[in-house]
Amino acid sequence: MSSNTFGQLFRFTTWGESHGPAIGCVVDGCPPRIPLAEADIQHHLDRRKPGQSKYTTQRREPDTVEIQSGVFEGMTTGTPISLVIRNVDQRSKDYSDIAPKFRPGHADYTYDMKYGIRDYRGGGRSSARETAMRVAAGAVARKVLETGIEGGAISIRAALVQMGPHGIDRGNWNWDTVDANPFFCPDARAAERWADYLDGVRKAGSSCGAVIEVVAEGLPPGLGAPIYGKLDTDIAAAMMSINAVKGVEIGAGFEAAALSGEENADEIRIGNDGHPIFRSNKAGGILGGISTGQPVVARFAVKPTSSILKPRETVTRDGEETEIVTKGRHDPCVGIRAVPVGEAMMALVLADHLMRHRAQCGAPLPPTPPLGA
Amino acid sequence: MSSNTFGQLFRFTTWGESHGPAIGCVVDGCPPRIPLAEADIQHHLDRRKPGQSKYTTQRREPDTVEIQSGVFEGMTTGTPISLVIRNVDQRSKDYSDIAPKFRPGHADYTYDMKYGIRDYRGGGRSSARETAMRVAAGAVARKVLETGIEGGAISIRAALVQMGPHGIDRGNWNWDTVDANPFFCPDARAAERWADYLDGVRKAGSSCGAVIEVVAEGLPPGLGAPIYGKLDTDIAAAMMSINAVKGVEIGAGFEAAALSGEENADEIRIGNDGHPIFRSNKAGGILGGISTGQPVVARFAVKPTSSILKPRETVTRDGEETEIVTKGRHDPCVGIRAVPVGEAMMALVLADHLMRHRAQCGAPLPPTPPLGA
Amino acid sequence: MSSNTFGQLFRFTTWGESHGPAIGCVVDGCPPRIPLAEADIQHHLDRRKPGQSKYTTQRREPDTVEIQSGVFEGMTTGTPISLVIRNVDQRSKDYSDIAPKFRPGHADYTYDMKYGIRDYRGGGRSSARETAMRVAAGAVARKVLETGIEGGAISIRAALVQMGPHGIDRGNWNWDTVDANPFFCPDARAAERWADYLDGVRKAGSSCGAVIEVVAEGLPPGLGAPIYGKLDTDIAAAMMSINAVKGVEIGAGFEAAALSGEENADEIRIGNDGHPIFRSNKAGGILGGISTGQPVVARFAVKPTSSILKPRETVTRDGEETEIVTKGRHDPCVGIRAVPVGEAMMALVLADHLMRHRAQCGAPLPPTPPLGA
Amino acid sequence: MSSNTFGQLFRFTTWGESHGPAIGCVVDGCPPRIPLAEADIQHHLDRRKPGQSKYTTQRREPDTVEIQSGVFEGMTTGTPISLVIRNVDQRSKDYSDIAPKFRPGHADYTYDMKYGIRDYRGGGRSSARETAMRVAAGAVARKVLETGIEGGAISIRAALVQMGPHGIDRGNWNWDTVDANPFFCPDARAAERWADYLDGVRKAGSSCGAVIEVVAEGLPPGLGAPIYGKLDTDIAAAMMSINAVKGVEIGAGFEAAALSGEENADEIRIGNDGHPIFRSNKAGGILGGISTGQPVVARFAVKPTSSILKPRETVTRDGEETEIVTKGRHDPCVGIRAVPVGEAMMALVLADHLMRHRAQCGAPLPPTPPLGA
Repeated sequence: MSSNTFGQLFRFTTWGESHGPAIGCVVDGCPPRIPLAEADIQHHLDRRKPGQSKYTTQRREPDTVEIQSGVFEGMTTGTPISLVIRNVDQRSKDYSDIAPKFRPGHADYTYDMKYGIRDYRGGGRSSARETAMRVAAGAVARKVLETGIEGGAISIRAALVQMGPHGIDRGNWNWDTVDANPFFCPDARAAERWADYLDGVRKAGSSCGAVIEVVAEGLPPGLGAPIYGKLDTDIAAAMMSINAVKGVEIGAGFEAAALSGEENADEIRIGNDGHPIFRSNKAGGILGGISTGQPVVARFAVKPTSSILKPRETVTRDGEETEIVTKGRHDPCVGIRAVPVGEAMMALVLADHLMRHRAQCGAPLPPTPPLGA
Repeated sequence: MSSNTFGQLFRFTTWGESHGPAIGCVVDGCPPRIPLAEADIQHHLDRRKPGQSKYTTQRREPDTVEIQSGVFEGMTTGTPISLVIRNVDQRSKDYSDIAPKFRPGHADYTYDMKYGIRDYRGGGRSSARETAMRVAAGAVARKVLETGIEGGAISIRAALVQMGPHGIDRGNWNWDTVDANPFFCPDARAAERWADYLDGVRKAGSSCGAVIEVVAEGLPPGLGAPIYGKLDTDIAAAMMSINAVKGVEIGAGFEAAALSGEENADEIRIGNDGHPIFRSNKAGGILGGISTGQPVVARFAVKPTSSILKPRETVTRDGEETEIVTKGRHDPCVGIRAVPVGEAMMALVLADHLMRHRAQCGAPLPPTPPLGA
Repeated sequence: MSSNTFGQLFRFTTWGESHGPAIGCVVDGCPPRIPLAEADIQHHLDRRKPGQSKYTTQRREPDTVEIQSGVFEGMTTGTPISLVIRNVDQRSKDYSDIAPKFRPGHADYTYDMKYGIRDYRGGGRSSARETAMRVAAGAVARKVLETGIEGGAISIRAALVQMGPHGIDRGNWNWDTVDANPFFCPDARAAERWADYLDGVRKAGSSCGAVIEVVAEGLPPGLGAPIYGKLDTDIAAAMMSINAVKGVEIGAGFEAAALSGEENADEIRIGNDGHPIFRSNKAGGILGGISTGQPVVARFAVKPTSSILKPRETVTRDGEETEIVTKGRHDPCVGIRAVPVGEAMMALVLADHLMRHRAQCGAPLPPTPPLGA
Repeated sequence: MSSNTFGQLFRFTTWGESHGPAIGCVVDGCPPRIPLAEADIQHHLDRRKPGQSKYTTQRREPDTVEIQSGVFEGMTTGTPISLVIRNVDQRSKDYSDIAPKFRPGHADYTYDMKYGIRDYRGGGRSSARETAMRVAAGAVARKVLETGIEGGAISIRAALVQMGPHGIDRGNWNWDTVDANPFFCPDARAAERWADYLDGVRKAGSSCGAVIEVVAEGLPPGLGAPIYGKLDTDIAAAMMSINAVKGVEIGAGFEAAALSGEENADEIRIGNDGHPIFRSNKAGGILGGISTGQPVVARFAVKPTSSILKPRETVTRDGEETEIVTKGRHDPCVGIRAVPVGEAMMALVLADHLMRHRAQCGAPLPPTPPLGA
């Protein structure tokens, strides 16, 4: 029931404000005897951290993670794993502008309406800084997935497939390209065009949105829990909970609405190894809320950064009309740094469902009979 | 943790298979002293029930609801409300075709992979018949919303805004039109064109998808619970959990990705009554996961019905390649009957969040009424 | 978060009032492919049902259970199991006495204070009739335990060890005796004395309390989840939730407070089979919230039946002083019929913990190494 | 579902091991705008901290709490409150004895059986050090109770009512005495006798148990949530989850089993102020799981400290028989320091139920305050 907790069996609870002393999370329910070191987590945090190119905020947050509990002699013990990142670049800033004014597109107004109080420094709890802890928890989830699936080489990867109005050519998709440009773009040529485009956006003091695609491969069929714990239900919740996300889709997504039944049906054949194979993956790897064994494919849309240099009309806490310009160091496209966050959320959903599946359907219950048995 | 339960404080648990003796749900956490009669629920069930036009399945399910507990002398008592609908039109059917074969696009294969057993009759638990109980529970949620918000005239309405590839003209939007055509279409002219289109689809033994828009008006600001219980997070989960849904978006949704920061910012002014008003609603009524007081707007995409008369290739439980034709009485566009289901899910999310908000941010406990008061 | 649901992974939700049309429950999370028939459940309900001796209420409730969902061709499918018992002996009774008056020791006053409304017929939701559904759900839990523990012959049994002020001689303990007398007493001689005692209580229009002991044998070590999901924590909650229970203890229980550290330590040796054995079981089979493999032993105290024929002073809803006599057919010692309820609650806790353990520590995780490995 | 989390709406999650860098907790769901400072929490921690008399462990842990989030300008904001205590007195100790051996009465054996790994330093996660965070979270809960109940002067106090086999004279009960002796004993004369008794126990290298009584006064009727979220159910779980607790009882508790129905009935009269008053409180302030408005009274039994200087027989991880002496600085009676822990758990249960009650039965949402109000 906590709204600061995600997951059922593999779960994490985050805490912390943008300009408090630290942010952190507690990962709870992790299986024991999984090798885990800070470096396993830091690797993923480094992909998200700010200041890595001129296209992301110039704040300098090293985002160094510390493990405070739950690991003994390099192995998880099954007890809660407390992770913390100290906040170091909290520029002593003048908040006289945003304290009394509601920035359009931000959570300022709604937090005030809900709680009657808000830590306005840097967005407080509603800052995207919170997503660092998702990436940290997601790194632990990946370790669970590696350990938990027999013979499984599971991979969870994401890429930016649209920046502002500009998409990619899927024929150029190359996963190796993703980490070779500052946008996590899988199409090298699109990345070049985006560089120019985003320069223009940045110089204009404007911002743009993005679409991210997350792909999980190597999953067994059977993960997911109908009716209200469907795999796609939980992926939708996971992605929509990320700051600035306004839409989520699975497989063919919104385009499926325009297809005919026969176009949309993923026909099934028997592969050379005797296992079923699907001729297409309109379903995005999920049927009836349960994984089919095909790649799980999700996309989510991120709105343009609300913090822009162009003045916008707004009101104050005192009910006065005014306008506001959001100065400071902001990402012109927050969608970029949402890429590792999307991966993390997918890992977290899958680790949770792995454990949920094991609870209800795992050994020593008779294993699911293979086809033809 | 139950995957058959939705909601945290106002919650419901559904049970039942398409061809079992009955389907039902338990609504738990409902506030006491809310007037509730079977007719309040039946009204909404009747909008969803099959056989109302040639465009929906010709099964005859009166879908008559019975209240079995939790209501005393016409009022809720605060104890669990058990609702049941007897299944009456379970045609004794020949299942020799679908029992051993996996229908493409259906949950047959994945249920078998997960559980090693499946009630194949009419889709069993994965049948959209389950959504009748969502509509029933949603009717109770509406009553909570009516009672729970001071002076509030909350309305939750939905409409079909796209059928197959065919959209509507938003300039023609008329809520009164929605119940005046068999498609819940708000644009009377589009409805006429859709009639022809869907006739063609049906005669061809094919099917089509749809997009549904759900709008909640009259909400106060402040509902929603960051970070992982955001209002949009829960709406995304609610809609994605509906059978055949492949995408969900809030406000500008996926289109927001292509807007600039200044286009997407909903500027704020002070209205004549001293309350803030927004110049636009790109946010869909939600900022930082909390309601702004503007209309909450969500859309979801439904894939084309998987049960079609055109033969599709598939495999059997024995690992043999085969093909399948899904005979029987099916909706050519399951999106139509998803309209009242979308409304119900929105009501359920909002009722839950109303109670969650009251728990954390509500006034001190009312003093105990003295006896005899 | 539902207060009508018990359990985390293996969970059940009960509904229904004493004098409504039916009572029921939904068992959710049950593993698939477990053989289950109504007779498996009925057997346990029959041990609890009223009217079996002159020492229990003379109401005639056959308490016939129906399975409405979740079972297909004699096997569980992994979907929710809806169980229902129709209420048949709702004597059309004159409630003019208890409707406006608060019966001392009953929940009348508190339900009214909480909800401002109450179904007073037969106690409504607060009636011990609800415990029939616990026994039904517990019967399903037993099946899970039988299937879920490798090589395990788990047994869960309970007995009445104190009636009013009268205990038993533990030297006479014989499990076979338990079902051979109307009190579930394991000491045949005590049972004889209790017969006389309870006759006197009943004739005097009075009532008495009882203490029940529940023993689970055949459990593996390792079940239980520190810190707040300890096995003993959940057993305490389970037993305390039973109507009229006022105390719960594990192993040596309250007597442990008076022991010295050396008396209370259960020393450990290596048995002939190489497994550790404990010299005593003061811990009641649980250390640090986790099962040791010894028998799990819990006891709970049931207060005397509050419905008695002797007049008691009370007040009305209108704030008037008055007195009340509770007529009708009541158990002079409700503790007797609590015996199968205690067994059921133990089974429910253990089945839940079995699944929880499997989720976090189960295969394909490396199995716990045996001692000496 | 987390076993490291307690509470539903007002909830806290603890983390940390005895000899890790720190222990901490996240308090989630706290209402906003409650004044909170570290001193509010430290006050209660100081009552629990070790080394305050010769009767508790001589470890020197200042147990200084830091608030890391969720408080802004001295007020709670409604976001998660992270509390941390650095571990400072982790004597670099020789663990060669307890690492491979299972201490009788400790969780060593069961943690190893469950997880296959255990942080043996100082008991790791199973150390009573974890209870410091309960006291910290409980201090926040007290603030919620003060704010949440209109006109309410709620008090939660506890006392030691039995040490080893030695009880108190209830006629001497004086709450002021409780903090005037090292045992939290309410009977000054008993405290003197206990001093001699415990000296003897300590010098003998032995230990003893205790019984603690917790009393909450000033509660309104109506708190509690039948059937499985009863107030007494949650109190039982709360107390049983404390380290070394083996029994819990409410009101007359186990003694109720020996009473007659008429002795046990708390008769009701109308007081001078027009409110009902009860002639006795056998029920311990709870009927049907809901508070009556009388004082809520709970007692729990703590077993004797398992760490004693007398050698006990045990086995090693390698399956060898051996014996063990637990050296080090241990409380001869852990029950003493359990007194503030019992108070904290009571406060936590009540704060949670206050919020749960408000969610279901509270008044309509307060209208949104207009801007500038």
